[in-house]
Amino acid sequence: MEYKKRNFSPRPSRPSLPLLIGRKPILEALENGTSVEKIFLLRTATGEEISAIKQLARERNIPISQVPVEKLNGMTKAQHQGLVAYTSLLEYIELQEAIDFVVEKGETPLFVLLDGVTDVRNVGAIARSALCCGAQGLILPTSNAASLTEDAIKTSAGALTQIMLCRTPSVPQALDVLKLNGIQILGTFMKGSVPVYEADLTIPSTIIMGAEDTGISKDVIRRADQLIRIPMAKAFDSLNVSVAAGMILYEAAKQRILQ
Amino acid sequence: MEYKKRNFSPRPSRPSLPLLIGRKPILEALENGTSVEKIFLLRTATGEEISAIKQLARERNIPISQVPVEKLNGMTKAQHQGLVAYTSLLEYIELQEAIDFVVEKGETPLFVLLDGVTDVRNVGAIARSALCCGAQGLILPTSNAASLTEDAIKTSAGALTQIMLCRTPSVPQALDVLKLNGIQILGTFMKGSVPVYEADLTIPSTIIMGAEDTGISKDVIRRADQLIRIPMAKAFDSLNVSVAAGMILYEAAKQRILQ
Repeated sequence: MEYKKRNFSPRPSRPSLPLLIGRKPILEALENGTSVEKIFLLRTATGEEISAIKQLARERNIPISQVPVEKLNGMTKAQHQGLVAYTSLLEYIELQEAIDFVVEKGETPLFVLLDGVTDVRNVGAIARSALCCGAQGLILPTSNAASLTEDAIKTSAGALTQIMLCRTPSVPQALDVLKLNGIQILGTFMKGSVPVYEADLTIPSTIIMGAEDTGISKDVIRRADQLIRIPMAKAFDSLNVSVAAGMILYEAAKQRILQ
Repeated sequence: MEYKKRNFSPRPSRPSLPLLIGRKPILEALENGTSVEKIFLLRTATGEEISAIKQLARERNIPISQVPVEKLNGMTKAQHQGLVAYTSLLEYIELQEAIDFVVEKGETPLFVLLDGVTDVRNVGAIARSALCCGAQGLILPTSNAASLTEDAIKTSAGALTQIMLCRTPSVPQALDVLKLNGIQILGTFMKGSVPVYEADLTIPSTIIMGAEDTGISKDVIRRADQLIRIPMAKAFDSLNVSVAAGMILYEAAKQRILQ
């Protein structure tokens, strides 16, 4: 399957994420393969179309947020039938497809998995560093992740439109896919035992960056092949997550260039 | 109208930079050694006190902005006599004193000079990385620099209160002081000839980061001992300045740890 890219416009000519409203338009969009960022579903909504939408969303890793009717009424004045969705400015790709794409090109996989990074500007900045440093893809959980809005794309200087984006319903599931493909998992952790420059980043690797406040999840700590840390000259509050990601990605780029 | 951006903080618990209003209060503050961030002076103002204030501001590298009366009227409703100043939340130190302090402690100087970085959040993020990576001081020009507002301090996670801050009336003058003290000047430049990992960052060094849009100035390009670049795996728009600074500071910290 060919990886599709969207054109990026630096001028804010585009509106915020376009809305899809109502059951039929959303079902049709999902059936047509339209890229959908997020679905907002009335908690009490039921019916055949709803079941079909849930099923398609699950298959395509599209986040569904169960909300009260007030939330939907606040999003649109139109007849929403318990269902509103944001279409996406970006295309998502299955993780396995992304890995296959990289391997087929003869490149060594370098992915960044964002485990709870919810600030759109941090996601944008990380995408920018990732692209510059030769990472081929970003992996984003469907829950507890930033929506990839125009603001994220702008902060990324367009990098989000040029890097492969993979959504995963659960981080452990993504780690399983990565491991099955022989890609090492490096969890970034303040108390990690391995200084990042001692990790071998020239082999297929996924770097996991954790939430701005709490860091990587316990699941990741348990399943990572190595827990890496950025050595600090001075004991101080941890680094900003996008700066920390930049440092690790720089180390990876350097190791791969000098290899 | 740069100061209009001040009310960014989501929880405005602290006031913005405290104002000093009128000739006598400002003259007294300068004579007392109060830390002053910036002085706004009516373009047409003259007199003995004004001359004394200008002289003291020059001696202490305090930026003076010559403004029309409307600007001052917009800053305060009080009788300003053509003069308003922001006191600083931070203390500044002479560059030579800062260098002496580092050398006397037996440390190897590592400074970061911001040549036109005007975004307060970038300054804050760079201060945070600088402190974490063992830099002892930030050097800021009195013109074409971000004011160190609460927002900058917050983005720095407090690092701006823990790192030495030096103001310089001109970048070339600061470079002269650094060179006289045997500190190498490394200009960060996209077309720099030296990949940053080939530069020796274990010797006394100053890293210069340029403006977000135009990069380092011609003066710096001419006077730098080396022009360093961050090698890119992929040709792309340059990195965010705070991420680029983080990568270089990481490289410096690593070299100094492994030395």
